[in-house]
Amino acid sequence: MDEETALSRLSFNQITCDRWRMDEAIEGCARAGISTISLWRHKLAEYGLEVTARHLRTAKLQVSSLCRGGYFPAATAAERQARIQDNQRAIEEAATLGAPVVVLVCGPAPDRDIAAARRMVADGIAQLLPFAAAHGVRLGIEPLHPVFAADRSVITTLAEANDLIEQFDSPWVGAVIDVYHVWWDPTLYAQISRATGRIVGFHLNDWPANMGVPFNSRQMMGDGVIELDRITRAVLATGYIGPIEVEILNTDLWAEPGDIVLARLRERYLKLMHDVATPQN
Amino acid sequence: MDEETALSRLSFNQITCDRWRMDEAIEGCARAGISTISLWRHKLAEYGLEVTARHLRTAKLQVSSLCRGGYFPAATAAERQARIQDNQRAIEEAATLGAPVVVLVCGPAPDRDIAAARRMVADGIAQLLPFAAAHGVRLGIEPLHPVFAADRSVITTLAEANDLIEQFDSPWVGAVIDVYHVWWDPTLYAQISRATGRIVGFHLNDWPANMGVPFNSRQMMGDGVIELDRITRAVLATGYIGPIEVEILNTDLWAEPGDIVLARLRERYLKLMHDVATPQN
Repeated sequence: MDEETALSRLSFNQITCDRWRMDEAIEGCARAGISTISLWRHKLAEYGLEVTARHLRTAKLQVSSLCRGGYFPAATAAERQARIQDNQRAIEEAATLGAPVVVLVCGPAPDRDIAAARRMVADGIAQLLPFAAAHGVRLGIEPLHPVFAADRSVITTLAEANDLIEQFDSPWVGAVIDVYHVWWDPTLYAQISRATGRIVGFHLNDWPANMGVPFNSRQMMGDGVIELDRITRAVLATGYIGPIEVEILNTDLWAEPGDIVLARLRERYLKLMHDVATPQN
Repeated sequence: MDEETALSRLSFNQITCDRWRMDEAIEGCARAGISTISLWRHKLAEYGLEVTARHLRTAKLQVSSLCRGGYFPAATAAERQARIQDNQRAIEEAATLGAPVVVLVCGPAPDRDIAAARRMVADGIAQLLPFAAAHGVRLGIEPLHPVFAADRSVITTLAEANDLIEQFDSPWVGAVIDVYHVWWDPTLYAQISRATGRIVGFHLNDWPANMGVPFNSRQMMGDGVIELDRITRAVLATGYIGPIEVEILNTDLWAEPGDIVLARLRERYLKLMHDVATPQN
């Protein structure tokens, strides 16, 4: 690809210069010779939809995508319906701006049941799809890095995005691949190939060598979001008869007296094993 | 499982009370009525191998596993050999303590080639396996959460661990499943079932609802560890003709003037696209 072609494909996601208002981002692209921009809805709300659309036309700037829709899982049907309506507004905004794609950050689970949350994502997309098609806007499923599984997206791999896409088999649903979210995946190249013809966005950036993730962030059983009873049942169901180890690296816990920690650990462990042994509904 | 049986299977990983020395951890287990402990090598080095073994016998405490071996990938053959020798020492220590398992944290890639690093892990385990078998110690492959792919382990999913285990098909190689590392995985239950008979450790703790992961930690292309040219080539090879978007959420970058950021972004992008277009060896 020559430099001119490469430049013609470059899109600037405006969050990269978060201090810029919408008008500054548009003018900045023009000064830098960048012809495509990706917009965020909170910036759009500040500057106004019609004003933004007009400014983009004047600056001859294309919009590659609108960030973001999604956040489908919620505890109640009413809340899930409110999320659908918000996604519909995002689709209308994208149509007005000439943005061909709304990026979906699918959202976290409202409780510990991540499988149920994944079904809510599929249901939400199914419900949204006719509206997207009618507006000529594609839904771009962006798998997020598993580190965000608890607070941003239960869709964590390109394989899951591909499963959803194949399930819908519609030109209005595709995958947004962001290198930051997928680079670690041992099945990445097979999944990219599988997404052939379904890729509706490709995001570049980089993952730091030292992320500074809090390794000492593990919680005592029951203080976090993991569906511990289901996982433990599955491990025991394989016939595993070995030790069940409690390993918690946690700075706060380290500050407490060991005997107190062991007493709580023992109590929480026995509570869990009691739940595990209790017949399920 | 009744309470007595559950307690008999509970193992206390000593890192959970990191301020305790080895002797304090051993006595703490005795006071709490916990009969099994998992040990870390740096604690062992402080207290001494023979002293620890004697104290464990006096306290009638079993050892479930020794943390940790692994860290196989390295830039040079000499360095990789040094890692093997360190793993052999871990196996000898485990044998002396009566620990049936050495937990393997497989290590990060020495450069951007994560596929090569994964091959180094397989090579390392292959080289170590006869030594482990001769000492009656199992190698427990512990997949780590993908958030640690850059700095702790290129083995990020239970599927990868299962692939390795099936490749070796030896009673001396198994999987250590830690809920913290695998809970997000959409294929988790299938992979647990696939690991039947090969699970050599099961670790409990919990994942916090708010991890506090730095979402604004994305780097400019080239400042991180992602094999960007290979991934970009793979996406383009599918026939993708859409925009290539640069999206970087980074607090430091946000502090810089936007025009400076866009100039660097454009330069790094064109450099990458030049590399992508350059024929590979």
